[in-house]
Amino acid sequence: MSENQTLIEGRNAVLEAFRSGRTIDKLYVLDGCKDGPVQTILREARKQKDVILNFVPKERLDQMSETGHHQGVVAQAAAYGYAAVEDILANAAKKGEPPFIILLDGIEDPHNLGAIIRTANQAGAHGVIIPSRRAVGLTATVARASAGALNYTPVAKVPNLSSVIGQLKKEGIWFVCADMAGESMYQLDLTGPIGLVIGGEGDGVGRLVKENCDMAARIPMKGDIDSLNASVAAGILAYEIVRQRLNGKR
Amino acid sequence: MSENQTLIEGRNAVLEAFRSGRTIDKLYVLDGCKDGPVQTILREARKQKDVILNFVPKERLDQMSETGHHQGVVAQAAAYGYAAVEDILANAAKKGEPPFIILLDGIEDPHNLGAIIRTANQAGAHGVIIPSRRAVGLTATVARASAGALNYTPVAKVPNLSSVIGQLKKEGIWFVCADMAGESMYQLDLTGPIGLVIGGEGDGVGRLVKENCDMAARIPMKGDIDSLNASVAAGILAYEIVRQRLNGKR
Repeated sequence: MSENQTLIEGRNAVLEAFRSGRTIDKLYVLDGCKDGPVQTILREARKQKDVILNFVPKERLDQMSETGHHQGVVAQAAAYGYAAVEDILANAAKKGEPPFIILLDGIEDPHNLGAIIRTANQAGAHGVIIPSRRAVGLTATVARASAGALNYTPVAKVPNLSSVIGQLKKEGIWFVCADMAGESMYQLDLTGPIGLVIGGEGDGVGRLVKENCDMAARIPMKGDIDSLNASVAAGILAYEIVRQRLNGKR
Repeated sequence: MSENQTLIEGRNAVLEAFRSGRTIDKLYVLDGCKDGPVQTILREARKQKDVILNFVPKERLDQMSETGHHQGVVAQAAAYGYAAVEDILANAAKKGEPPFIILLDGIEDPHNLGAIIRTANQAGAHGVIIPSRRAVGLTATVARASAGALNYTPVAKVPNLSSVIGQLKKEGIWFVCADMAGESMYQLDLTGPIGLVIGGEGDGVGRLVKENCDMAARIPMKGDIDSLNASVAAGILAYEIVRQRLNGKR
């Protein structure tokens, strides 16, 4: 049910959603369908940056459809609006604090994304940045899992995490990524303007993003298994930053 | 699907499950049903401590049933076996470490329970203790969310958390509960033998359990909302214990 709220089906409904300025995460169009109305929708889609366009077979659309009347077009809309990266920096400036941003490289589980936005809010992070591709967007499930934090903590969606990291470095922000091969988080200096990069559930932080980070932080693990849940790992690392900001580096 | 693996339906299947020593969390019996086979099942159920017995109307059983052939009896079995509290203490002794136990006062979401067992494993906790009532047991979903940690970290189920805390205090274990009205976790000494008590998603740690704890720890929160996700909060507190154990109290 929850995810349904973000599905828009049928030609008129999808076109209307684009024209009203609603943020569309993904557009699914019947493969080979090229008639006038579909061309109009594709034109609108290209105006809105960051829409992921997929041409799919009829079976896929039928499977996704809730109403059974998709007319060859299904759009997945963000349940909540996205902020710009500048909004996050402005948020930090307004509070007179050094920026603290959480960047997520490919979180796919909406419960994890919601829990991380909730953690970002409580840890005093000024915003969250997610990539457009291979990651869950701001669906209704994410909003619910965030327990209301989505109303307060800005979330920006960007086409390329690495290039955003490059830009933010010029603003004086340092980047630390979660990495099991990194240094113990207790040994790193995480005070000052910081971007914390957390990897996806499956593969962790991508190579290119990792190479763009200044530091790699390891959560000490004594266990018999591979890793922690992504939202738990984000919470532990975010609160090591909170601790160091409160107490100064030990 | 995942939860189904733990449902046992029908008189023979349920009786067999009890006789084979399988851990049954909950038994649902048709209200008013008192014939011979059902009496036999109830006798077996009473032998196994901690079975929660519910007499329910037919509609409820029909609704729960996957097979449509419940014959008035449905049992919910643990997908994984429970350990005893003594096993957890033995685990600590075997490793030559002061006991570190995580107690959960009413976690209802199987994903949260699984994530916490995973965290317990990685943080080097010697086991997890959960209550029999008003909490999720070791279902297949929990096992999956634990990412394999359930194979390594013992989980004990007890009828009464408060009385177990009382017993473990006599073993020299100190108890700290997560409490938004407590002292900042960074100010507390969390080294030494410790039991960390985390409350459920809705109500936090119960009054009686809280009164039995030696300390109340607060995670500093700067946010606009009420609380953190329960498994994230457990992770942050567990890792403050890890940090203090590694580095000594600051």
